[in-house]
Amino acid sequence: MALAQSMLPPPFLAVAAIQPLPHQRQTLPIGAVRPGILPPRAAKRSAKARLPSAVTDESLSSIISDLELELDDGMAAAGELSGGSTLAERWREIHGRDEWVGLLDPMDPLLRSELIRYGEFAQACYDAFDYDPFSRFCGSCKYSRRKFFSSLGMDGAGYEVTRYLYATSNINLPNFFRTSRVGARTWSQEANWIGYVAVSDDETTARLGRRDLVIAWRGTVTRLEWIADLMDFLRPVTAVGIPSPDAAVKVESGFADLYTDKDPTCRFCKYSAREQVLTEVRKLVERYGAAGDEVSVSVTGHSLGSALAILSAYDIAEMGLNKASGGGGGAAAPVAVFSYSGPRVGNGRFKKRFDELGIKAIRVVNVHDTVPKVPGVLFNERVPELVRKAAEGLPWSYSHVGVELALDHKRSPFLKETGDPSCFHNLEAHLHLLDGYHGKGRRFVLASARDPALVNKSSDFLKDHHMVPPFWRQDENKGMTRAHDGRWVQRNRQEIDDHPEDTHHLLRRLGLAAENN
Amino acid sequence: MALAQSMLPPPFLAVAAIQPLPHQRQTLPIGAVRPGILPPRAAKRSAKARLPSAVTDESLSSIISDLELELDDGMAAAGELSGGSTLAERWREIHGRDEWVGLLDPMDPLLRSELIRYGEFAQACYDAFDYDPFSRFCGSCKYSRRKFFSSLGMDGAGYEVTRYLYATSNINLPNFFRTSRVGARTWSQEANWIGYVAVSDDETTARLGRRDLVIAWRGTVTRLEWIADLMDFLRPVTAVGIPSPDAAVKVESGFADLYTDKDPTCRFCKYSAREQVLTEVRKLVERYGAAGDEVSVSVTGHSLGSALAILSAYDIAEMGLNKASGGGGGAAAPVAVFSYSGPRVGNGRFKKRFDELGIKAIRVVNVHDTVPKVPGVLFNERVPELVRKAAEGLPWSYSHVGVELALDHKRSPFLKETGDPSCFHNLEAHLHLLDGYHGKGRRFVLASARDPALVNKSSDFLKDHHMVPPFWRQDENKGMTRAHDGRWVQRNRQEIDDHPEDTHHLLRRLGLAAENN
Repeated sequence: MALAQSMLPPPFLAVAAIQPLPHQRQTLPIGAVRPGILPPRAAKRSAKARLPSAVTDESLSSIISDLELELDDGMAAAGELSGGSTLAERWREIHGRDEWVGLLDPMDPLLRSELIRYGEFAQACYDAFDYDPFSRFCGSCKYSRRKFFSSLGMDGAGYEVTRYLYATSNINLPNFFRTSRVGARTWSQEANWIGYVAVSDDETTARLGRRDLVIAWRGTVTRLEWIADLMDFLRPVTAVGIPSPDAAVKVESGFADLYTDKDPTCRFCKYSAREQVLTEVRKLVERYGAAGDEVSVSVTGHSLGSALAILSAYDIAEMGLNKASGGGGGAAAPVAVFSYSGPRVGNGRFKKRFDELGIKAIRVVNVHDTVPKVPGVLFNERVPELVRKAAEGLPWSYSHVGVELALDHKRSPFLKETGDPSCFHNLEAHLHLLDGYHGKGRRFVLASARDPALVNKSSDFLKDHHMVPPFWRQDENKGMTRAHDGRWVQRNRQEIDDHPEDTHHLLRRLGLAAENN
Repeated sequence: MALAQSMLPPPFLAVAAIQPLPHQRQTLPIGAVRPGILPPRAAKRSAKARLPSAVTDESLSSIISDLELELDDGMAAAGELSGGSTLAERWREIHGRDEWVGLLDPMDPLLRSELIRYGEFAQACYDAFDYDPFSRFCGSCKYSRRKFFSSLGMDGAGYEVTRYLYATSNINLPNFFRTSRVGARTWSQEANWIGYVAVSDDETTARLGRRDLVIAWRGTVTRLEWIADLMDFLRPVTAVGIPSPDAAVKVESGFADLYTDKDPTCRFCKYSAREQVLTEVRKLVERYGAAGDEVSVSVTGHSLGSALAILSAYDIAEMGLNKASGGGGGAAAPVAVFSYSGPRVGNGRFKKRFDELGIKAIRVVNVHDTVPKVPGVLFNERVPELVRKAAEGLPWSYSHVGVELALDHKRSPFLKETGDPSCFHNLEAHLHLLDGYHGKGRRFVLASARDPALVNKSSDFLKDHHMVPPFWRQDENKGMTRAHDGRWVQRNRQEIDDHPEDTHHLLRRLGLAAENN
């Protein structure tokens, strides 16, 4: 695709600042839709004046106060790229209908805030995952499904999680799966939580202009060795039960395994991730289609989660689950992938079929991150057409899908010099870079003043003088709490959701039940 | 002293269990006085029955449920060593009047619970200290003085902190002092919080049988390199302004510096730790003496904090501050040191003078911990009298003070095999060992069922199968909190106490004011 080619990493140009729409700085809960906001000069000055002169000052200060935003008053004149229109009016465009042509350079503020919003759905998978090998719930989601967003302080998200997704940890992905150090009395020996399906509530649906289904896949926060383990080989999707009219459509076999493997002995992974997500999407599309809602399917993921997002988006479209059941009638729900630091997933034929199915994908990457460069370092979408044709049959000829939005962490004045590849790959860092991105060669200026402190949630990437502790995201006392009798205990978690009772019924309707029992 | 000699580490004998006083298991907040409690068989069985059969059980379980206490019903008959008498009746004995003769083997339950209680006052210094180099308050106490115990969940302590103690961090003790990674806007560049003075409230005073002043000194949690740095040389106490009728009374110079150094430019350490503690003790002894209270002075500390405890107890007694002012009249308040894993502090003459002053010290050690064996590895109180006399003039001839209570971490079935010296040295581990200690060669059985989970607060010492995370004591999000505007900030601390206004006046009365300005 010409578009993908044109989205190669930009050269490191000199800077000309251009800024959209300054209106009043406002409280922005994580997960809320952010129009491109830049505090006007007056607001900035007052923020600076609020800096505590003495540590005994009772006011609060934050890292943002440290920044000299250096705004030019003239920048406001550079214009309102959104043209004042709302997400409800523009959502199809923002969702990739036109493959984001004209929205990336200069950066469209509404698209920017939506990229951050979908990235935060992926980030939620990290923030909610129980990594602690001493927890009996290691490998599960720390929060109950019904309180998912509120537990994460994302009350403003406006979505409801309808299903948790699990995968079997029998697959060899040591840095992705986590299991308790001690096997006894753990929630599960075989399963790991790998994401969720959520749907917008009525209020948010009105704001978004359609009922939005979000599928968010967990990836890997640090430790990039998994990618080396994965550089395995391409395998036809049909070999793992994913339909395709073209037998030459292939994907990396590790991703396919992760997506399709199951363990009949395990309550949580007796259905594959694939079966879980397909049945849930079928159910929700039918439910909201029957209610007359316009529906969109938005699949998001970071790193390995991006691979699952691309694969599952393909599967959903190939299975026709974005259409009302029965095949007839109404328009298909548009399917878009919001990918962050994702590796390549399949071959050129996979990409071709992905495009034919009308799936849109936007891939946010940091040019210094190696993960998006693999697999397929030698043979990929960047080599000349002729070489690619010749290499098509090779098991290591990969192709990216969709449109790339290349960011450069060296543009952010908040980030320090480091050689740590896990910093380059960090999702929160990408969201920070998005907030400062205004187009190729344009100066880095925070558009919504999204809190840069979030970058250090699980990295050591902010400059020291901002005084934000590295890796600050942690539970009080590692989840140990004081019981009524004074003892320190790990609180037992509430009932952990496994699978809705209609899963098998829905699988039968999808023609997939034969695989189950 | 004959007593100190007789308290050498016991041989690893076979076990005969003897147990005091089983009454009902009860809620025991940390810091509460614990009579020697052992749950009766029925209580134990029901605790075991409460073990969650499934992780979805909503009940709480704790590590204690894991233990087979293996009680013999006959053990109860072994008797109630406390003889049913109360702390109010026995406090002088427990406080060391008779140098703990007859209380250590078998272990007196009341003494055991008091050793744990004073150890917890020392532990509070660790739990309250801000170690985070990214905090603007690094090196200070995390909690305000008036809410000290409640912030630590020690509401039941029954003491009120009357003063925080600071030292100048200009001294070369890199693992003791902590300073912010970034100098600007920190609470202090020169000071570190090193402990506190507290006094028992009326209710607790009634229970204890006297008004108890506690002086607790912070030590070093991990990193034992400081002890190597300190193996410096002995120095006459008079050289640093501590009085002594015997010019040959010497202490390790590093401890003396830490205790007496100050920095006139610093709000928090313009008075030395010595000046702070002496003026506070004088004030409190006068206040409560005038009110007709019997008063005791209890000095506690772990590791380096033990050295400060011994040195300050000596100083208080030598200065006569435990007596009502004017020198005349009433009896002196008894001064006792509760020392945990402490090194040697001074020479033989220091010990001699310490004894002459009537100060009592009990030193709880783990026989596998090296810290109590230094300084003075070659010449110390254990070498024959003749050698000691000959070595007396050497600058590396040290002597322990007081009575040693030697514990052995290998006796606890909760602790794993490890070669990590910081585990052997850990204060919480000592408190756990105390709770299981019943006398030389007697079986390890938890007397009060003090929660073994506390051991892993800042160590990795519990057996893995107890499923208590190592180093679990940590603040939620490293103290980052969400402000009203959604930003993540380090909360500014309330006003940090420096020094009472009467400090200079009291110093003048003590004849020490000439040193100040």
